[in-house]
Amino acid sequence: MIKVSIIGASGYSGQELIYYLSHHPYVEIKHLFSHSYSGKKVGFLFTNVGEVIEEKEFEDFSKIEDAQDSDLIFFCLPPGKSFEWIKIFKKSKIIDLSADYRLKKPSLYPLWYNFSHPFPSLLEEAVYGLPDIYSTEIKNASLVANPGCYATSVILSIYPALLAKIINQDYLIVDAKSGISGAGKKLDLMYHFPECNENIIPYRILNHRHISEIEQELNKISKEPVKISFVPQLVPMDRGILSTCFLNLKEKKTLEEIYDIYTDFYKNSKFVKILPLGTTPRVKEVVRTNYLEIGLFLDQQNSCLVVISVIDNLVKGASGQAIENMNLMFNFPQDTSLK
Amino acid sequence: MIKVSIIGASGYSGQELIYYLSHHPYVEIKHLFSHSYSGKKVGFLFTNVGEVIEEKEFEDFSKIEDAQDSDLIFFCLPPGKSFEWIKIFKKSKIIDLSADYRLKKPSLYPLWYNFSHPFPSLLEEAVYGLPDIYSTEIKNASLVANPGCYATSVILSIYPALLAKIINQDYLIVDAKSGISGAGKKLDLMYHFPECNENIIPYRILNHRHISEIEQELNKISKEPVKISFVPQLVPMDRGILSTCFLNLKEKKTLEEIYDIYTDFYKNSKFVKILPLGTTPRVKEVVRTNYLEIGLFLDQQNSCLVVISVIDNLVKGASGQAIENMNLMFNFPQDTSLK
Amino acid sequence: MIKVSIIGASGYSGQELIYYLSHHPYVEIKHLFSHSYSGKKVGFLFTNVGEVIEEKEFEDFSKIEDAQDSDLIFFCLPPGKSFEWIKIFKKSKIIDLSADYRLKKPSLYPLWYNFSHPFPSLLEEAVYGLPDIYSTEIKNASLVANPGCYATSVILSIYPALLAKIINQDYLIVDAKSGISGAGKKLDLMYHFPECNENIIPYRILNHRHISEIEQELNKISKEPVKISFVPQLVPMDRGILSTCFLNLKEKKTLEEIYDIYTDFYKNSKFVKILPLGTTPRVKEVVRTNYLEIGLFLDQQNSCLVVISVIDNLVKGASGQAIENMNLMFNFPQDTSLK
Amino acid sequence: MIKVSIIGASGYSGQELIYYLSHHPYVEIKHLFSHSYSGKKVGFLFTNVGEVIEEKEFEDFSKIEDAQDSDLIFFCLPPGKSFEWIKIFKKSKIIDLSADYRLKKPSLYPLWYNFSHPFPSLLEEAVYGLPDIYSTEIKNASLVANPGCYATSVILSIYPALLAKIINQDYLIVDAKSGISGAGKKLDLMYHFPECNENIIPYRILNHRHISEIEQELNKISKEPVKISFVPQLVPMDRGILSTCFLNLKEKKTLEEIYDIYTDFYKNSKFVKILPLGTTPRVKEVVRTNYLEIGLFLDQQNSCLVVISVIDNLVKGASGQAIENMNLMFNFPQDTSLK
Repeated sequence: MIKVSIIGASGYSGQELIYYLSHHPYVEIKHLFSHSYSGKKVGFLFTNVGEVIEEKEFEDFSKIEDAQDSDLIFFCLPPGKSFEWIKIFKKSKIIDLSADYRLKKPSLYPLWYNFSHPFPSLLEEAVYGLPDIYSTEIKNASLVANPGCYATSVILSIYPALLAKIINQDYLIVDAKSGISGAGKKLDLMYHFPECNENIIPYRILNHRHISEIEQELNKISKEPVKISFVPQLVPMDRGILSTCFLNLKEKKTLEEIYDIYTDFYKNSKFVKILPLGTTPRVKEVVRTNYLEIGLFLDQQNSCLVVISVIDNLVKGASGQAIENMNLMFNFPQDTSLK
Repeated sequence: MIKVSIIGASGYSGQELIYYLSHHPYVEIKHLFSHSYSGKKVGFLFTNVGEVIEEKEFEDFSKIEDAQDSDLIFFCLPPGKSFEWIKIFKKSKIIDLSADYRLKKPSLYPLWYNFSHPFPSLLEEAVYGLPDIYSTEIKNASLVANPGCYATSVILSIYPALLAKIINQDYLIVDAKSGISGAGKKLDLMYHFPECNENIIPYRILNHRHISEIEQELNKISKEPVKISFVPQLVPMDRGILSTCFLNLKEKKTLEEIYDIYTDFYKNSKFVKILPLGTTPRVKEVVRTNYLEIGLFLDQQNSCLVVISVIDNLVKGASGQAIENMNLMFNFPQDTSLK
Repeated sequence: MIKVSIIGASGYSGQELIYYLSHHPYVEIKHLFSHSYSGKKVGFLFTNVGEVIEEKEFEDFSKIEDAQDSDLIFFCLPPGKSFEWIKIFKKSKIIDLSADYRLKKPSLYPLWYNFSHPFPSLLEEAVYGLPDIYSTEIKNASLVANPGCYATSVILSIYPALLAKIINQDYLIVDAKSGISGAGKKLDLMYHFPECNENIIPYRILNHRHISEIEQELNKISKEPVKISFVPQLVPMDRGILSTCFLNLKEKKTLEEIYDIYTDFYKNSKFVKILPLGTTPRVKEVVRTNYLEIGLFLDQQNSCLVVISVIDNLVKGASGQAIENMNLMFNFPQDTSLK
Repeated sequence: MIKVSIIGASGYSGQELIYYLSHHPYVEIKHLFSHSYSGKKVGFLFTNVGEVIEEKEFEDFSKIEDAQDSDLIFFCLPPGKSFEWIKIFKKSKIIDLSADYRLKKPSLYPLWYNFSHPFPSLLEEAVYGLPDIYSTEIKNASLVANPGCYATSVILSIYPALLAKIINQDYLIVDAKSGISGAGKKLDLMYHFPECNENIIPYRILNHRHISEIEQELNKISKEPVKISFVPQLVPMDRGILSTCFLNLKEKKTLEEIYDIYTDFYKNSKFVKILPLGTTPRVKEVVRTNYLEIGLFLDQQNSCLVVISVIDNLVKGASGQAIENMNLMFNFPQDTSLK
């Protein structure tokens, strides 16, 4: 039984974490910190997590030091907002759901996030929390940088093909669509119902921040730097990401060969499913699950491999994957509370 | 004042046609034929088109010959369903909203539509009804093949770049998203509300029928055959298509140069707008209009030109464009009833 | 040709007004004032209104006096926000879309709107702008208080039955559902897409502000004060209101008799339709039209008359009705630009 | 460990049952019968229920006798479709999710369901499966008629007030709104996405079939027959019912007194929550839970008590409640697998 606290517990990923933690047999939730809801009971926000937790109160950030006895802290804050607290938790393991420890090169932070990183040494120490690739490192980590939702979906879609050297690394095309919860709880006219309903909204075209972590992770297995053109779009639904990746095959491959590469790569993955050839991934099948499903398609005429993947942005794309990471870090079965 | 009849008037594109025709100053609606609603009044289906037309009755297909005195017939039937009637209308001009006259090579019909075309000579005669490219031919046409919704959006997005020879023709990537009305009124579990709501559904991946007309039209201006990888997806909204086209530049171009090529090409177009650089097209802005809006973006690192276009699938993608074609065929101002 | 200006032109009802005014043959749009968009072109917000108007700029409120030469001013501001300007327009007619002049008793303003009304004499002068009831008064008005969206739908649903004295006035039950645009463009967590999507949200239960105007208007034709229990609810769609009214018949009536009362009352109404008995109103049929459709149903066992009505909250419930009022005030045909 | 089979397992309530049963610690799923999906694996339809169950195949109805060794059979078929099989299961307990055993009077079946009931004696034997009222009877039942979704929501909203004799029984007004999954998986133009999206659709106004069971259950505790005016409406969302009940108080009561009556009545209920006064129920809070939440509001002027309740139509309104019933019938804790 480990003690767990959440800093930034009332946003969408915080809520989702509470849901999974409350069903987890080896976890005791200790502190839940929230700016907006401090003093209010969890049950005020969230009604299906068991009476014990519903009776708990969100606490003010001024009391964060009370969480020092937690074995694990989840940070669920916007990028750059947790640096003042990170050093308090010397004895706790940390999973940060923001981008604050995802990038290895400090110089990338001013570029993509408009701040200088105050703790470059933590960047070296942090492990990028993609369990389907880094499970060994995660098991030994004390600081895990939980990947971005788009990044999870895109890296896992491209990784096996790139590793097998069957695609050109310099023309990776990704068209991604996300439900609106991906934008979080922050109010903005773009997420006002009458604006995004009955609409498709492309945004941050070719310069979304998740490109930086996608490039970093893919470059690790590519001789030459990858070049990725990434276009994200908002679609009128609560949850889910569908990423369509158009990858250029270096030489002729059959779809069956490619299928073998993918299934082999993910043979030990708990939550990545390669769908049988001919089956199409749909967002609704993975919503409220921690699964990532991948469908493979091949355009023979121009050697274009189309990889379509779906996840729930709040689960495999955020809190579910954070639970996977926690399970690995504390030697619980990887799928505890997630199936 | 011309007399107009519609065969297949109670589907979504039929309804939309009635709407625009009822507001058209030079048109008298004569006959409206419908299998499903024959005997019912227009007002039973459609409440905002003026009392005269609402009082009209949908007629049974057995009375189609009564429409022979019409100056213009719109066919709004599924592919392959109107061949028995086409020869009746010797004196009328025809705009067919199905795919029945879009393809020039008869051999393509068995391949893409599972039937042998009974009237190959009509394929030669028919004009592909894209007014932004073929206005002269349309003016003189007696049979116009109204383009497919995806095809309209994709051809107009790629045409100027291909014509200017600035992109490679052999690796055209298109990711398209459509509202559910694009699938028509035919019942299918895929379009049942609880199935497609809160979902994104890719379908006919790399083999959607509209690929055939896109290839045909683009091949006309390309020395080598174009190769297009096209992935369509259903998105939970009523109307609208957003197509994201990833085009590979042959050599370095600035976005400004590309912008000039596009604005120059469409300088006489009534309904194609090239958005100022930096502005992103959104579906909602064109819904219930006949506009196609194009946004241009450039990924310098890999010379990928991203062209994003939006239309209303039922207007510029079907009935609105049919009205444009009618206006051209009868020498009415091209935008009559459409602005 | 009259000159018209709008104060508060960039909200949803302002946008809708611009749309209808831009298609109006006897209107010239002079000034459009907006806090949020001053300096931006209309075309930045609104793309389908004709190039002349799209090129116009929204102006800052500091320039409101420039609109003094307008024949008509539309106020589209939140309640209590226009009092500083109203006295400037001595020579212009005014249609106010807020609640600022709807209530006759000054004492009701502190109660329902939390402010003391600064110009009680204007309350006497103002005409409640419901053309289906007060067309004569509107024709002669210089200040029209455009009714609330719910109020329009509820008053017109109950009025004929109450006037005919066939229902008890002291137990009027109304359950109303509105699309989210009814809440306007103001950001609030309640209207954030992931909160109101896949949800039904009752609010201001039994104390919504529109109750005050409904009571006022119905009391005019009732010997005893009406008592209305009104429950509004938000439903995940852009536009539309459906109000279900449960009215208690004083004595047995057949549905046919009631139908005659309603059709007779509205026989001269341009935009109120009593549907044939057995036909059910649906929101989608009136969306983007100025129609109000009413369906009548009778529960014999307990003498409960069920009146279901539908409108578009932004058209008949706001800007469309404002145009009707304008047409009456300036002797244009009542449905100009609305059909 | 009990053996359980489902007849009609591939509809929405069947799917939901599989989900809850697959997480149930004391249940082994034996047979799943389906017309439409026989021969296909569960995993083809439903991807988040554990590999063992996903590998199971839906079986054809011709093999129903194979299920005779099941301790419990769930019938999830449309009304009147299971009579040929019911007699096969002499040794199994049965929970029928259709209306086939809900009504006690055989004469009501021709009236409401257009068939004569072939087994009137089973109607006497069957227990109406509302655990919040009939838990004792359910514990001893061998045939449970699982209540309708609207009926669950309405009966539980009105029951405490009627039992306490504080409301008039002859003027019960209920306005109910349901998500589209309430209509099941059967295709119909009314549930086609472009028809019910952006719409509110009232249907079976004042004569919905669930009225019969609501009346039956409420009449049991009312001296005089209840008279209920019930108007259901479809709202564009997947799941959820919100019922607004307008009840006429016999004499003055404070809201606090009424609150005490409700909380007292449900003090032992596992899944009915009376919200604190001032709190409004919202559909989204109960979606994917087995809770029914009730909010109480009072209109003093006309003594109208407004009871608003929300449930998930597929959980408390169908399969979740069926699981509750199973748990009671087999002496498992009532909330097993539901929290």
